[in-house]
Amino acid sequence: MELKQPKNIAVIGGGSWATAIVKMLCNNIEGKVFWWMRNADKANYINKYHHNPRYLSSIQFDKEKIHVSNDLEEVLDSSDWIVMGTPAAFLSDVFEGKGSLGLENKIIFSAIKGIVPEYHAIPARYFHKQFGTPYENIGIICGPCHAEEVALERLSYLTFACQTEENAAIMASLFECRYIKVSTSDDLFGTELSAVLKNVYAIAAGICHGLGYGDNFQAVLIANAIQEIEKFVDAVNPIHRDVKSSAYLGDLLVTAYSQFSRNRTFGSMVGKGYSVKSAQFEMNMTAEGYYAVKSIIEINKKFNVEIPIAEAVYRILYEKISPAIEMRILTDKLT
Amino acid sequence: MELKQPKNIAVIGGGSWATAIVKMLCNNIEGKVFWWMRNADKANYINKYHHNPRYLSSIQFDKEKIHVSNDLEEVLDSSDWIVMGTPAAFLSDVFEGKGSLGLENKIIFSAIKGIVPEYHAIPARYFHKQFGTPYENIGIICGPCHAEEVALERLSYLTFACQTEENAAIMASLFECRYIKVSTSDDLFGTELSAVLKNVYAIAAGICHGLGYGDNFQAVLIANAIQEIEKFVDAVNPIHRDVKSSAYLGDLLVTAYSQFSRNRTFGSMVGKGYSVKSAQFEMNMTAEGYYAVKSIIEINKKFNVEIPIAEAVYRILYEKISPAIEMRILTDKLT
Repeated sequence: MELKQPKNIAVIGGGSWATAIVKMLCNNIEGKVFWWMRNADKANYINKYHHNPRYLSSIQFDKEKIHVSNDLEEVLDSSDWIVMGTPAAFLSDVFEGKGSLGLENKIIFSAIKGIVPEYHAIPARYFHKQFGTPYENIGIICGPCHAEEVALERLSYLTFACQTEENAAIMASLFECRYIKVSTSDDLFGTELSAVLKNVYAIAAGICHGLGYGDNFQAVLIANAIQEIEKFVDAVNPIHRDVKSSAYLGDLLVTAYSQFSRNRTFGSMVGKGYSVKSAQFEMNMTAEGYYAVKSIIEINKKFNVEIPIAEAVYRILYEKISPAIEMRILTDKLT
Repeated sequence: MELKQPKNIAVIGGGSWATAIVKMLCNNIEGKVFWWMRNADKANYINKYHHNPRYLSSIQFDKEKIHVSNDLEEVLDSSDWIVMGTPAAFLSDVFEGKGSLGLENKIIFSAIKGIVPEYHAIPARYFHKQFGTPYENIGIICGPCHAEEVALERLSYLTFACQTEENAAIMASLFECRYIKVSTSDDLFGTELSAVLKNVYAIAAGICHGLGYGDNFQAVLIANAIQEIEKFVDAVNPIHRDVKSSAYLGDLLVTAYSQFSRNRTFGSMVGKGYSVKSAQFEMNMTAEGYYAVKSIIEINKKFNVEIPIAEAVYRILYEKISPAIEMRILTDKLT
């Protein structure tokens, strides 16, 4: 199949994952990467100095390949192909009160790992409901992929999921390079929900680590977590999938076993006795899994899947149940 | 079902896993744990001071509950229930030239993670072929379980697999305690082969770590490894099983992600450029996965399963192919 790549591409978001995405896209894009971030000063700084001072600052961009702007319309008009890379919690802010911006006719790939909190919806659903973009033109980019390792050009594998195989293949071809291997999938909802859930389980792993549980228990927890992911995702979207693939299990592993995962760190602080608020204050940010678990429990009211690990995380974070007690109860539900 | 526990139990082997097993059994055994080790001085030392000076020396045994001896017949005669805990590579040495020792009438649970090299056989098959013990009376004890964490009484989960469910349940009941949760399975061959294979994949993880591959790649490697385990085990013994369970995936995770795993350390040294011999010399021991991969490749001549990760490890360890080249080739076979 001959793939017709777009000349330009738009990237929305100024954080570390968006920065890594722009780096990857610069390798293959024929024209330019049009890169939106909220802050005009930062956009101008990157246009002038060709690196992002705040995130992955070691990455030097090819100045011919990027145009950074805080003008959302300008950036969206540059291409029919858009990669969304903001945190899920701020996604609706970006588009609030700006009309549809022509998004109904775009091909949108989400690199967001989270749930849009106001809508209890994965980003794909948000774009579809909010702007009328057909599901066939919505995709997701999933890891396992720490942005920091992309900056270091360490070999990573990305999966591009879209119900339209050709769209997935075209987007994948824009990312494929010496240090990025790509594959495609048609499991839009499953990969996206799994990417959301893994942050919840990374929080669980962190809480247990903070409480002093050891490696033996962590291995049991993660083995049970991937089974929970399978049960939940199969209930919400019953198609054939193998959750042992990199986009599901690999993504869970890189998050739950990484000392650098924000979600794991947040959980670890809660397990060590920080209140949720003081852990968030101390970290100066909110872990995605904190929002995600609330929406997952909300969504699960419809599906009633047994997800004891996610429920334990929810009760600890939102109902102030003692982590020690909640996790001790959980240990009897694992096998 | 009422379980009739044996009064005494025999444990064979003096290493760290056997030591942890004796600790666990001391909690529940009504009579004594009869504990065999090769060295008479060490056996006498433990009888006198109630701790093993070489392995997990912090464990203090209840002196009423153990009897240590280098007399194999005495120990085997103490009980119809035996736990085998020697390294696989030395297993046949222990029994060499001693006749059947009545093992055909015993219930033997193997806590050995490896292949008996002279026979290219998992221990269950070795006992069955060598002593005529019926498969219904042979079981396996599987993790995820580092012995060091048992010494620290950190919560761990063990699975007891035996085709006779009652045997598995009785053995499990002897181990269950405050810090050990147990479950049973009928998948004798699958759990045992998986326990063997995980050491091979831990070596692969070590090699890649030594070569400088990052966390993103490790997650892909392990996700592919559990798929290889599933394919191989299903080919050798096609029964229904879920390899995402703790006994398979959990055991793989605790080994492949642990900095303390001997197999991972060995692989890491090879990845960094040590020859296989100098890595073994430096570690003063041989990683189980080194023997295991040779036997797995041998067994696979019959089944022809695609197991590219195990094959890469084999070529690096036995055919002196450069780890960098072999792993670069492997990266194209993973998804």
